[in-house]
Amino acid sequence: MVIHSATLAIDETIRARRAAGERLLHLAFGEAGLPVPDEIAERLAAAAGRNGYGPVVGSAEAREAAAGWFTRRGLDTGARQIVFAPGSKALLYALIAALPGDVVLPRPAWVSYAAQSALAGKRVIGVDIPAEGAGGVPDPERLATVLRESRPGVLVLTVPDNPTGTVADPERLRAVCALAERHGLAVIADEIYAELVHDGTRPPGAAALHPERTVVTSGLSKSLALGGWRIGFARLPAGPWGDALRSELTGVASEVWSSLAAPMQAVAAHVLADPPGVTAHIAAARRLHATVARAVHAEFTAAGALCRPPTAGFYLYPDFAPLRDALAARGVTQGAALATALLERHGVGVLPGEAFGDAPEALRVRVATSLLYGETDEERWRALRAPDPLALPWVADALARLRAALAGLTTGPVTASTGESAPRTR
Amino acid sequence: MVIHSATLAIDETIRARRAAGERLLHLAFGEAGLPVPDEIAERLAAAAGRNGYGPVVGSAEAREAAAGWFTRRGLDTGARQIVFAPGSKALLYALIAALPGDVVLPRPAWVSYAAQSALAGKRVIGVDIPAEGAGGVPDPERLATVLRESRPGVLVLTVPDNPTGTVADPERLRAVCALAERHGLAVIADEIYAELVHDGTRPPGAAALHPERTVVTSGLSKSLALGGWRIGFARLPAGPWGDALRSELTGVASEVWSSLAAPMQAVAAHVLADPPGVTAHIAAARRLHATVARAVHAEFTAAGALCRPPTAGFYLYPDFAPLRDALAARGVTQGAALATALLERHGVGVLPGEAFGDAPEALRVRVATSLLYGETDEERWRALRAPDPLALPWVADALARLRAALAGLTTGPVTASTGESAPRTR
Repeated sequence: MVIHSATLAIDETIRARRAAGERLLHLAFGEAGLPVPDEIAERLAAAAGRNGYGPVVGSAEAREAAAGWFTRRGLDTGARQIVFAPGSKALLYALIAALPGDVVLPRPAWVSYAAQSALAGKRVIGVDIPAEGAGGVPDPERLATVLRESRPGVLVLTVPDNPTGTVADPERLRAVCALAERHGLAVIADEIYAELVHDGTRPPGAAALHPERTVVTSGLSKSLALGGWRIGFARLPAGPWGDALRSELTGVASEVWSSLAAPMQAVAAHVLADPPGVTAHIAAARRLHATVARAVHAEFTAAGALCRPPTAGFYLYPDFAPLRDALAARGVTQGAALATALLERHGVGVLPGEAFGDAPEALRVRVATSLLYGETDEERWRALRAPDPLALPWVADALARLRAALAGLTTGPVTASTGESAPRTR
Repeated sequence: MVIHSATLAIDETIRARRAAGERLLHLAFGEAGLPVPDEIAERLAAAAGRNGYGPVVGSAEAREAAAGWFTRRGLDTGARQIVFAPGSKALLYALIAALPGDVVLPRPAWVSYAAQSALAGKRVIGVDIPAEGAGGVPDPERLATVLRESRPGVLVLTVPDNPTGTVADPERLRAVCALAERHGLAVIADEIYAELVHDGTRPPGAAALHPERTVVTSGLSKSLALGGWRIGFARLPAGPWGDALRSELTGVASEVWSSLAAPMQAVAAHVLADPPGVTAHIAAARRLHATVARAVHAEFTAAGALCRPPTAGFYLYPDFAPLRDALAARGVTQGAALATALLERHGVGVLPGEAFGDAPEALRVRVATSLLYGETDEERWRALRAPDPLALPWVADALARLRAALAGLTTGPVTASTGESAPRTR
């Protein structure tokens, strides 16, 4: 039985129900929700003549741009260390398949790491993130305990994190990377949200701390909202271990996807040179993501949930534990039932923490805030340019609907219905 | 150890050596070697605003176009039966991974089926094609013998065929599909060359003969030379078996590549509606492929090789068995050594049959004729429009170089060097 990506599945479900006339607030999918800048659209159009397969790793031009991009961010990188692919998801799958050993994931973690590991025949070991503090990196003491009991091969770190929308503390990252080094663990550092730290700083990176065996993955899906263009890239470590992995990785790539579409490589070559128009666009997106994520965070905490304040990207991971009794009185005692109740009773789509590997009984859900910016490109451009996007009527309306929905969760009629028996939200 | 795609690897090798100044004739890679028509480039540019992930299977628009495309070709198809992906290679991998059981391949067969099977943990059973007649479909009697001895789950058929450039006889296809039906085998019908039968007819299809369990894969890489755009699609059977497979396939897709890039889906929606400009372009490409493939075939047979006359696509699969003694006198007794000798002594890149699963000792190589049309888009447009492309100086020159190289294989000095010990051509 293949596990379907929970995020893609609920996106399709909610879009279909909205298309059929339902009024649903879509907080379930991590699409960056912003239009394509003209500068980037023009690059795609200009590259339409490029129809050759080209190298599996990507063109020299695109790889040199990516190498420069990493180097300017403090990681000296040669073009030989870069591999492009149709999305960083494809690279993550190929890396998990190519690297030997079981896979350690922070708990919670992005939905696909575990499913990809299963597809590659790997066992997953979830290690909790600290109850307080940011996500994306496991608690070092718990990781040390796991490493005393088992010999996994791979550790995935997500900095900044999805689902929590937070940036791991540098000290914790350092401790975890030291453990990885001591135990010979390969680290896959998923840094696809690294351009979207709300204060514009660069998050701490595992590749500087554990240089010989850290692979960094990234892409243009989040920073530039180009999810539907499927542009991903990886930075492999320099040295013999990185060279051997490059051979394994490009072997899988050559048999599964051949190469990233050539016109998309041309787009990447442009964007990764950090031209001023692109940099300014990303800065504007970062401000919008920060503003809306904070406003949504305020709604969840006002409703009584615990929630880490968001510091990157466009996600929240509220915990309704303080409302457990009131929710139980309304038939909701697990995360999946909470997500179902939010969708079916209150018209708000989120994903249960269980989809991210969290405990089923935890009353935690993942909230994506990036589809609130508007329904049309015009609305989204206005949101991006507004001094106060929260004052735009469609954003304000969405926040008001969310407020009412969250209030309704614990003020609606007490019911005996057992939400738990509802089908698990995909 | 991961197997790298032999075709992609030699393409990179030859391009790098040519870029470094070597004068090599590139007959090793199945890139269709033609430029992008303006009509198609404009569709890509017009779709640059599409940046959402969209459904894993592809947009309704693209899937409806593909359903119509199959239906007009004699296979009634609904949009629900269609799945798009970044290349039919990705679909082939996901299908082999999702379908239970070992994999039967014609021998020889395209390089990636066996590697994909290995990646998915599947055993491969090669069944020879007839010594006479077309490739892509195993000999029915040999297949029947295999099915008496083992219980594979999947049979891959390639009609028209790569590497032989031929179209399976309808009677043989019927016999093989009857066996597949009787034994409950799923058939993957790779029909990516179906628009390129030289006489413009539609090749016989397994989906009509074994409708409940045949999946057809195709794409725009060959008919429209859009290999570097990575546009692939599959047609699943209607009915419960097809529905279950769709769920498995989209599960793998959702965890490995998410979706085909949205602008590429828009291109597919246009092309698959069979607009007259596209149809005329494909017809011109078909004529050019046929003319050049026949001319190259004449060179190989004139040199003394046995070779099936090409009837589709842009491949030949010559067998140098009649020259075995003359080649052995020059240190060449296996297919890999023959390919090495052609490249290193005579400047002609081809792939050994061994890369296609053929016997190592067979003196057979796969010859791709599609990179002879020119080095620039201007030359390629002229080749496409020429009444007699063989008279164009760069095409005539390439054929003359090939003639000299083939003559040199058996007229050069007798040597004791053992070509067999050269590294296996990737």
